[in-house]
Amino acid sequence: MNLPSHLLEAAVQEFAKLPGIGKKTALRLVLHLLKQDPKDVEQFSGAITRMRDEIQFCKVCHNISDTDTCSICSNPGRKKEMICVVENIRDVIAIESTEQYSGTYHVLGGVISPLDGIGPDQLTIDALVTRVNEEKSKEIVFALNPTIQGDTTIYYIRKKLNNPALTFTTIARGIAFGGELEYADEMTLAKSIRNRLPVDSYIQ
Amino acid sequence: MNLPSHLLEAAVQEFAKLPGIGKKTALRLVLHLLKQDPKDVEQFSGAITRMRDEIQFCKVCHNISDTDTCSICSNPGRKKEMICVVENIRDVIAIESTEQYSGTYHVLGGVISPLDGIGPDQLTIDALVTRVNEEKSKEIVFALNPTIQGDTTIYYIRKKLNNPALTFTTIARGIAFGGELEYADEMTLAKSIRNRLPVDSYIQ
Repeated sequence: MNLPSHLLEAAVQEFAKLPGIGKKTALRLVLHLLKQDPKDVEQFSGAITRMRDEIQFCKVCHNISDTDTCSICSNPGRKKEMICVVENIRDVIAIESTEQYSGTYHVLGGVISPLDGIGPDQLTIDALVTRVNEEKSKEIVFALNPTIQGDTTIYYIRKKLNNPALTFTTIARGIAFGGELEYADEMTLAKSIRNRLPVDSYIQ
Repeated sequence: MNLPSHLLEAAVQEFAKLPGIGKKTALRLVLHLLKQDPKDVEQFSGAITRMRDEIQFCKVCHNISDTDTCSICSNPGRKKEMICVVENIRDVIAIESTEQYSGTYHVLGGVISPLDGIGPDQLTIDALVTRVNEEKSKEIVFALNPTIQGDTTIYYIRKKLNNPALTFTTIARGIAFGGELEYADEMTLAKSIRNRLPVDSYIQ
């Protein structure tokens, strides 16, 4: 595809770097933006740059935040003794939208996956261990995708947090094996939070 | 969907304004950008703002251009007496990539469509008429989508340019009726440029 302008070409190439967007779609999006008011386009790119430059990660749970501590961790109404362990920020958003969970979160930043070169050190597991000890947590709710990697991560964290005072639960397997948590409908996700199961019964 | 950050929310909303992108896809794209280096994100939004602010439209053919006159109009190797009339810039790009056309273009900016409130005045038809008279054009090649609106536009322009010295042709109907020109494969499009037909045989 030969574009008549270098400026257009540059913008198309940038869009085509995004996941799931090919060159034709990129061109369609760029030509759409070209039809918009320059101010609106300014707003578009401004919102993205600002997001990247100014967004922070909560120092407690590693969720996205506008401040040092995220709105969930700093909310006195949330049960601090209950920590829901998730893979990424999208999972927090998905669970939050069910309005069924009143505890806090811990975003791992991924799951243990030796094939992808992701070991426990790349995740926020150490921070979780420190946090659990400091906060005297009572329950760890695992809300990881039901895959081998998710299960390995649960197993690893459970061993690392070896503490008889802690209860380990996992969201109910309403979601098909191999499925992606973030695409579950809210009903299934809401039920699976309510009917969470002890890890022992789940892993056997 | 309740997002944990206003900055994130703003960026997602901007992406969701793009055609064919819903809120979930927008979030996926924004979180992808969040994982990138701030410099790369700067480059992404910079390319878009620059494109919108600095891009020009060729004063001859209304194609996108980095300069006053586009690279096609200012190319001495292109046949000036042959003008291919297209609906939009994407059509120019599609025809150019077949490498079968050596004339110039004229981008209408749409087709006559009374139902959508688009009349001849919103298109660059007057500029085309002036141009044809000034440049002493010999052939007008219509490369519009084969729809009722496209046919109406051909009919209107042909009447407006009423000049016995002009030959009116149209790209061959290799494309199914109701189809979209920009999605045609290069082979079909290349053939339809090569086997263009006199408008008289086409309209009857």
